[in-house]
Amino acid sequence: MELWFTEEHTENVRFSIRVDRHIVSEQSDFQKIDVFETPEFGKMLIIDDFVMLTEKDEFIYHEMITHVPMAVNQNIKNILVIGAGDGGTVRELTRYNSVEKIEMVEIDKKVVDISMEYLPFTASRLNSEKVKLYFEDGLKFVKTKENEYDLIIVDSTDPIGPGVELFTKEFYENCFKALKEDGILVNQHESPYYKREQEAMQKAHKKIKEVFPIARVYQAHIPTYGSGHWLFGFASKKYDPVKDLNEEWWNSIKIDTRYYDTELHKGCFALPNYVKKLLSNA
Amino acid sequence: MELWFTEEHTENVRFSIRVDRHIVSEQSDFQKIDVFETPEFGKMLIIDDFVMLTEKDEFIYHEMITHVPMAVNQNIKNILVIGAGDGGTVRELTRYNSVEKIEMVEIDKKVVDISMEYLPFTASRLNSEKVKLYFEDGLKFVKTKENEYDLIIVDSTDPIGPGVELFTKEFYENCFKALKEDGILVNQHESPYYKREQEAMQKAHKKIKEVFPIARVYQAHIPTYGSGHWLFGFASKKYDPVKDLNEEWWNSIKIDTRYYDTELHKGCFALPNYVKKLLSNA
Repeated sequence: MELWFTEEHTENVRFSIRVDRHIVSEQSDFQKIDVFETPEFGKMLIIDDFVMLTEKDEFIYHEMITHVPMAVNQNIKNILVIGAGDGGTVRELTRYNSVEKIEMVEIDKKVVDISMEYLPFTASRLNSEKVKLYFEDGLKFVKTKENEYDLIIVDSTDPIGPGVELFTKEFYENCFKALKEDGILVNQHESPYYKREQEAMQKAHKKIKEVFPIARVYQAHIPTYGSGHWLFGFASKKYDPVKDLNEEWWNSIKIDTRYYDTELHKGCFALPNYVKKLLSNA
Repeated sequence: MELWFTEEHTENVRFSIRVDRHIVSEQSDFQKIDVFETPEFGKMLIIDDFVMLTEKDEFIYHEMITHVPMAVNQNIKNILVIGAGDGGTVRELTRYNSVEKIEMVEIDKKVVDISMEYLPFTASRLNSEKVKLYFEDGLKFVKTKENEYDLIIVDSTDPIGPGVELFTKEFYENCFKALKEDGILVNQHESPYYKREQEAMQKAHKKIKEVFPIARVYQAHIPTYGSGHWLFGFASKKYDPVKDLNEEWWNSIKIDTRYYDTELHKGCFALPNYVKKLLSNA
């Protein structure tokens, strides 16, 4: 028997992965959650038929969504993480001794439960004493906060299903309010290549730059996401992600990384012309 | 009826593209050549079942294999291009008034004939008066040359079939000899992600750095190649690709590009740690 998982990148493009074992399949109140064991990528977390992470390359996504903002401000102590139920983002953040508190708000407890059980490589630090988990609606949670966080990371699914509200202008405005005067917002910013993600990227950027004085976008090579060309947003009240990179400090704390370093930090903000054009026309 | 073309990225990973029309399929003396019309990517050139180019994103590959070396030395006048039968590399090079002569050596005339007939968007400049085409073995051709070229571009298929010899140390040594004392060699350098291309990348880099005093690698996002993370080699006798970037000159000649610019030029040499490690262990 051959078992294959197929993600439709578009209605005309399919990415198929051979599966050794379908480990779990659950329908939560919010979405369908599957875990596969695969020969190429190890374990994979799939939500609503889209690849969320693979054991082989989750390090790329999780390093890029965390170390880029962390290397800009060495005084980041209080962090809010929205989404990120698999735990990979928190795992990276707990590597900083300087971080004091991480509040993580995930709407779907089932994602955390499944990750704790089947994906220990990402979920391993979710029970760190610095971490406080809330199983709530991210938009409602952030609405109640003011001048509280040094960094907010929005590690969301695509703007389909429960992720939709994390792409609204109201949400970005609430993040702005919840951040301190030198706060940074980093978000999963979709992809420039296929139409669906391209439109989501443009809409998100348009809204974020209406709210934050500094709104930049950076890129990474993530082979198991559609097109492999994935973006993150860096929005901030004060810090420029490249000019204010604290290279010396970040290299002095010796965090061992497999994708990120401070040279790549500077390089990843140099976007292709066609992406810059899409963003400026957003 | 549904028609799909599938490329096997590995035996466990498949990339499938919906096809509107199978325009041509020919077996040459060297390889199987197909052209498809597709709704997502426009026309596609396939050789031995691997995607060589698509109308949608060939600009990324062709801009990156040409403008990176061209922006380093404004006195590049004589160029040798090996492979590149589709014409995209030559198209980009003919945009420079400063270029005097382009010799292109493609072993398989059928690739050029098919490209001229079905892929005018890449083949359009193959009959420029600056271009001289040779349908010969690239290794043999370059062996006869000495101190002749400012730039050699190796725009080859993977090291399978006729592309194999363009990945040998003998070939790189002959390129070194054929280049002038400030010559640059740029090559299609495979990909770091899946095992087959990862090994080809390591082998190529090991050989090139044994031959050239300067041997760097740079990256681009090419969604229709396996993993979407593709590499190019920049080897040279004298110029460092970043320190010697002639930014002011390149921006003054106003070549309109959709992927490349001089900021991205500097950024694309900042490789992920795992790629640097693979290259230094090569």
